[in-house]
Amino acid sequence: MPRPKFKEMERTYGFDEVALVPGDTTVNPDQTDISFALGDFTFSIPILASAMDAVVNPSSAIKFSQVGGLAVLNLEGIQTRYENPDEILEQIAQTPETEVTSLLQKIYSQPIKDKLIGERIEAIKQAGSICAASITPTKTKRLAPIAKDAGMDVLVVQSTVTTARHISKSYRGLILPELCQMISLPIIVGNCCSYSAALELMQTGIDAILVGVGPGAACTTREVIGVGVPQITATIESAAARETYFKENGKYVSVITDGGIRIGGDLCKTFAAGADAVMLGSPLAQATEAPGRGYHWGMSHSHPALPRGTRVRVDIIAPMEQILFGPTSVTDGTQNLVGALRTSMGVCGARTIKEMHKVKMIIAPTIKTEGKYFQAIQHVP
Amino acid sequence: MPRPKFKEMERTYGFDEVALVPGDTTVNPDQTDISFALGDFTFSIPILASAMDAVVNPSSAIKFSQVGGLAVLNLEGIQTRYENPDEILEQIAQTPETEVTSLLQKIYSQPIKDKLIGERIEAIKQAGSICAASITPTKTKRLAPIAKDAGMDVLVVQSTVTTARHISKSYRGLILPELCQMISLPIIVGNCCSYSAALELMQTGIDAILVGVGPGAACTTREVIGVGVPQITATIESAAARETYFKENGKYVSVITDGGIRIGGDLCKTFAAGADAVMLGSPLAQATEAPGRGYHWGMSHSHPALPRGTRVRVDIIAPMEQILFGPTSVTDGTQNLVGALRTSMGVCGARTIKEMHKVKMIIAPTIKTEGKYFQAIQHVP
Amino acid sequence: MPRPKFKEMERTYGFDEVALVPGDTTVNPDQTDISFALGDFTFSIPILASAMDAVVNPSSAIKFSQVGGLAVLNLEGIQTRYENPDEILEQIAQTPETEVTSLLQKIYSQPIKDKLIGERIEAIKQAGSICAASITPTKTKRLAPIAKDAGMDVLVVQSTVTTARHISKSYRGLILPELCQMISLPIIVGNCCSYSAALELMQTGIDAILVGVGPGAACTTREVIGVGVPQITATIESAAARETYFKENGKYVSVITDGGIRIGGDLCKTFAAGADAVMLGSPLAQATEAPGRGYHWGMSHSHPALPRGTRVRVDIIAPMEQILFGPTSVTDGTQNLVGALRTSMGVCGARTIKEMHKVKMIIAPTIKTEGKYFQAIQHVP
Amino acid sequence: MPRPKFKEMERTYGFDEVALVPGDTTVNPDQTDISFALGDFTFSIPILASAMDAVVNPSSAIKFSQVGGLAVLNLEGIQTRYENPDEILEQIAQTPETEVTSLLQKIYSQPIKDKLIGERIEAIKQAGSICAASITPTKTKRLAPIAKDAGMDVLVVQSTVTTARHISKSYRGLILPELCQMISLPIIVGNCCSYSAALELMQTGIDAILVGVGPGAACTTREVIGVGVPQITATIESAAARETYFKENGKYVSVITDGGIRIGGDLCKTFAAGADAVMLGSPLAQATEAPGRGYHWGMSHSHPALPRGTRVRVDIIAPMEQILFGPTSVTDGTQNLVGALRTSMGVCGARTIKEMHKVKMIIAPTIKTEGKYFQAIQHVP
Repeated sequence: MPRPKFKEMERTYGFDEVALVPGDTTVNPDQTDISFALGDFTFSIPILASAMDAVVNPSSAIKFSQVGGLAVLNLEGIQTRYENPDEILEQIAQTPETEVTSLLQKIYSQPIKDKLIGERIEAIKQAGSICAASITPTKTKRLAPIAKDAGMDVLVVQSTVTTARHISKSYRGLILPELCQMISLPIIVGNCCSYSAALELMQTGIDAILVGVGPGAACTTREVIGVGVPQITATIESAAARETYFKENGKYVSVITDGGIRIGGDLCKTFAAGADAVMLGSPLAQATEAPGRGYHWGMSHSHPALPRGTRVRVDIIAPMEQILFGPTSVTDGTQNLVGALRTSMGVCGARTIKEMHKVKMIIAPTIKTEGKYFQAIQHVP
Repeated sequence: MPRPKFKEMERTYGFDEVALVPGDTTVNPDQTDISFALGDFTFSIPILASAMDAVVNPSSAIKFSQVGGLAVLNLEGIQTRYENPDEILEQIAQTPETEVTSLLQKIYSQPIKDKLIGERIEAIKQAGSICAASITPTKTKRLAPIAKDAGMDVLVVQSTVTTARHISKSYRGLILPELCQMISLPIIVGNCCSYSAALELMQTGIDAILVGVGPGAACTTREVIGVGVPQITATIESAAARETYFKENGKYVSVITDGGIRIGGDLCKTFAAGADAVMLGSPLAQATEAPGRGYHWGMSHSHPALPRGTRVRVDIIAPMEQILFGPTSVTDGTQNLVGALRTSMGVCGARTIKEMHKVKMIIAPTIKTEGKYFQAIQHVP
Repeated sequence: MPRPKFKEMERTYGFDEVALVPGDTTVNPDQTDISFALGDFTFSIPILASAMDAVVNPSSAIKFSQVGGLAVLNLEGIQTRYENPDEILEQIAQTPETEVTSLLQKIYSQPIKDKLIGERIEAIKQAGSICAASITPTKTKRLAPIAKDAGMDVLVVQSTVTTARHISKSYRGLILPELCQMISLPIIVGNCCSYSAALELMQTGIDAILVGVGPGAACTTREVIGVGVPQITATIESAAARETYFKENGKYVSVITDGGIRIGGDLCKTFAAGADAVMLGSPLAQATEAPGRGYHWGMSHSHPALPRGTRVRVDIIAPMEQILFGPTSVTDGTQNLVGALRTSMGVCGARTIKEMHKVKMIIAPTIKTEGKYFQAIQHVP
Repeated sequence: MPRPKFKEMERTYGFDEVALVPGDTTVNPDQTDISFALGDFTFSIPILASAMDAVVNPSSAIKFSQVGGLAVLNLEGIQTRYENPDEILEQIAQTPETEVTSLLQKIYSQPIKDKLIGERIEAIKQAGSICAASITPTKTKRLAPIAKDAGMDVLVVQSTVTTARHISKSYRGLILPELCQMISLPIIVGNCCSYSAALELMQTGIDAILVGVGPGAACTTREVIGVGVPQITATIESAAARETYFKENGKYVSVITDGGIRIGGDLCKTFAAGADAVMLGSPLAQATEAPGRGYHWGMSHSHPALPRGTRVRVDIIAPMEQILFGPTSVTDGTQNLVGALRTSMGVCGARTIKEMHKVKMIIAPTIKTEGKYFQAIQHVP
């Protein structure tokens, strides 16, 4: 019996399955250029802080801006629903795991207060910081003008999956080309994770895309609805869309990989896969300055009927600056992320992020098994 | 020394090895159509409840029919061997693991009582529910007419593996085309798991096939006899047979994937692989209404000489309706299965199950390793 | 820089990575033929008992012959070095793990007594059993005639790796064609694990080969010297050699897969890979009749300078007959191995072992993960 | 939408993913030749001891030379920074894991004393041993002449990644062809891990390369900066560069695989992948004679800002001679490494290391799962 062609599936890859190959030339790490440009802004480090309530509040945003990155404030989170967000954040940190999802569902069902949007943004601007803020597509038309009036510099339109086209009989979706015209600020849209979806988003006129569906530490999207693309493949596809779009239109739309990056090794691989910048959640939730008090949770965790997420305990490990720039005495890749990136570029022979995009990457899922033979010592009396 | 062609093997895939890719368009989940048609019946949800004694008895069948699905009553189980099945089910729940297989072997060696077949079916029909019932191939000729007389609406002919042809010197096997003529009801036959076997079954004139050999939580067929095909591949092959048969004969024989689905993510992937409906065991054994009292076991578990199965403790987690439709505060994918399917279809841009069949699926075995760095908190004192 | 062709490696497969596909036809298990022919002998079950001291002594060999299989007595083990082997076996069972390798090295350094070779073989023959005995290649010329005089029916020439050619300056290796002429008994030689090595062995005139290097439960050859081929691939290659040799010479040299088979599923897959018979160690060491007293160790475990093996605790689980033929109430595949084979053949539509060779096999490494969601219950108070 | 070609990645392999296939011929292990030539030196075993402070000090170097290998002294470690190194080594062994990285950073920030370089090398030479010493590229021009004057026989230029070209605006890097002319000793350079980088290094006129980035037991390079190539692939690529270079220039530049080898099986596979010699760290840190006192740490572990490494407890298991030559009663592959290599070569039919390069290697990631069914016994009372 002849067999027809069955449904085809391609193999995809995540951080733990790949590795970078040293270059034939090496470069002095001090002489690498890792700056990231978005619209007329240039950031000295190619890192964004996630629009998550455990990561960004006005004060951590100011600090993050001072060290050279771009923090994104969630305009639909605790900061804009509560006059006194710290009280709520403290409550989340004090609640047992078994009850925390219900609590989050309740907390996030409170209304957003327009007044607080203005206040939070102004707090960031008054410190002289660049202010980015995120809104979901359905609320963008209403909230974006308020935020712009308050001084927002960069608009982030973000939901689990955002596409250039949305089908609904009950409402007219957000039309991105219209938004670009109306708002006239740098716009970042996401998340997406395939070549075609990335390309369609770029064609709407935006300035950068967020890449990543399902990979974050605080996310269970793949368990609940089966959807998710490993970040290395998602970034490779999105970077290819950027090149296609640039070749056809001459505009360079940045690719920002968002979610799943935990350690320096992941970060370095992301740039080799084609990212122009990365957005970090869990690693920054570990900073002394993080509002999450040692916990971290995702945006879909508070969905009233189908929550998708886990509150993870990340622990406070060091000040934000040390996590980003070291020096450090920990060797597991959680600190000195910028130093790790520069060292990796040096070893791989890349002077710029664009040269890093061309570094050779291999499929190398081998887990080191030394533990089988040698035990990392725990305690010496 | 030239080498001949060795035996060839194809790579196959299970739930945990694949993921879905978001669409280039998204759809409002409320506007997805997930109905399932079988003969002249249309069910509002594409879910069947397994013909297992821990999942379906008359009262749970009635409830399941009321919420829009189709429950299948096992006509060779405890319900038709015992006047008072609850006594037996209680006994199973009270027996230690080390003794339960012997007990099941003894329980299922009691004779089937024709009278009880009638009574159980009538109980379901009197509640106004659609009644499906399952019989093994060797008993079908004798029991199917009794069940039909009692009001059975849908006949399920089911064994571990059922084929269109069976070789035996000692008896004449069940001839499916003859059965279809005789019984004149919608007939579902299974289980099968390959393109060729599925196609041969379709050619006998039946209305739907059950897909799945070896994947269920309560099944050890692969350990004991080495046989089993992972469900994603089995569903892809069976769906291809459906398309071949439809193209050649114009009849759409439904593909019902049976076994191994535990969480929303599995369910969503199954439809993307080509299923028209799914049959659930363990997830429904967790319902308050389930006869299994927090336990679940398989049909082959009571084989007198070669039992293949494990009694698993599934625990009672929520009422059936909440498992199916939410709302929920658990985030591991075990609740709100229908909501998960609609959300997944929305994100993947599928308005109907047939559009869901075309959603892009990838091979993505990466296990999220956040646990390595961040611990999900267990207790907060 | 153009790159040359690098060293190539083929992917190989073990038991846990493959599964069998049900047939398009099914067969009544009672009507399957699983007999195994070797020389003029026909055995009712295609199973040999390993030439290991924990598995075969004269009394277990007699029992194994009575139920239809062929036990192989190790002529260089405890039975031929000690007048009272039970004393030694008891000592091994009583020694802590940390000291057992030294003990085995000491025990196996005692000389082989020619007189005991005769006595052990005669004990088996006097019970009316067929007697097979194993000798290593370097000792074959000296010991084989003694064993033949005592009544040995089948000669097994066995070492970790045996090839048709051996290079040494210090002695003349065993010449297999000369041995075949001299001994005029059915000869089984092993172990080998590739197409070319199997074919060369067949060309020496022997009757069967043992397949398997490195896979057994009591073997650490792969850890110590890096050598080993997974059993499914080794069997597929050896079976291809059998077909090549049969086509060219008209003689059917049997393929006996030896080592690594633990459960019914493994056994069934082995035959689908092309085996004519299997040799079992650990599964039979679990029999009440086994001399090992609940322990099992390998032939290389006692090497004086480079021991390769682990003594494993297998526990006594059931009488030999129950392990082979059931009935059973355990569902993990460790009992009723013959019933499992017949059932598997039935489901796969194979009437004979030769038809089983053609059954479709797939690569299906998925581990069932139900444990993540449902716990197999351990104790019910 | 047509899709462009995405970034490509090749599959690579580590020790645990491959295995060796027995030969069609076997060889008597006693008659294998495993000698290793470097410049005018010939070593009876193809093993170098790592330039790590836990492995090599003058006394262990002398011992290692006596048994036929080549130990490499780290000229930038504890031996050349401290008059009394044993005091420092004792301090490291006594410090808890949580504090040891800070301690190492402090210890390795002390200045190197030129006088001690001379003293350590002379101690080795006075015992009649061949002396190899390692220097990092940036310090080579200054320290190599001092070491040569003191009697150094072999120069090792080593850093995590060393390439033929280095880009820096602030200093002129080491020019290897100039070094070769100046120093006129056998020169080993590393580490590298790809075909192109290895070939470029060979073209500078050196005598051997060290292969391996990221694989060692005490190394976390891959976690921290994402860089690393599994050793089997790295060795295969480097060996191909050696063949290319030899064909074009007639000079045989040796390939020395460095890092990640823990047991006999790893060692044997390394030679089959193409290595001429191996450099061992952890396995020799387990010797009674090792300066590390049961601990082991890497060269990058003491980096002041971005430490990459873990101190591992290796435990003292046996004298160096027993680890290398046995006899042994342990069966996990950690002892009698030379015996394992000879046995492996015998089983694979290789008389020399060059024949071992041609042995068939397979991809065989299967982990033996006997533990699932049979427990290795821990204690017998």
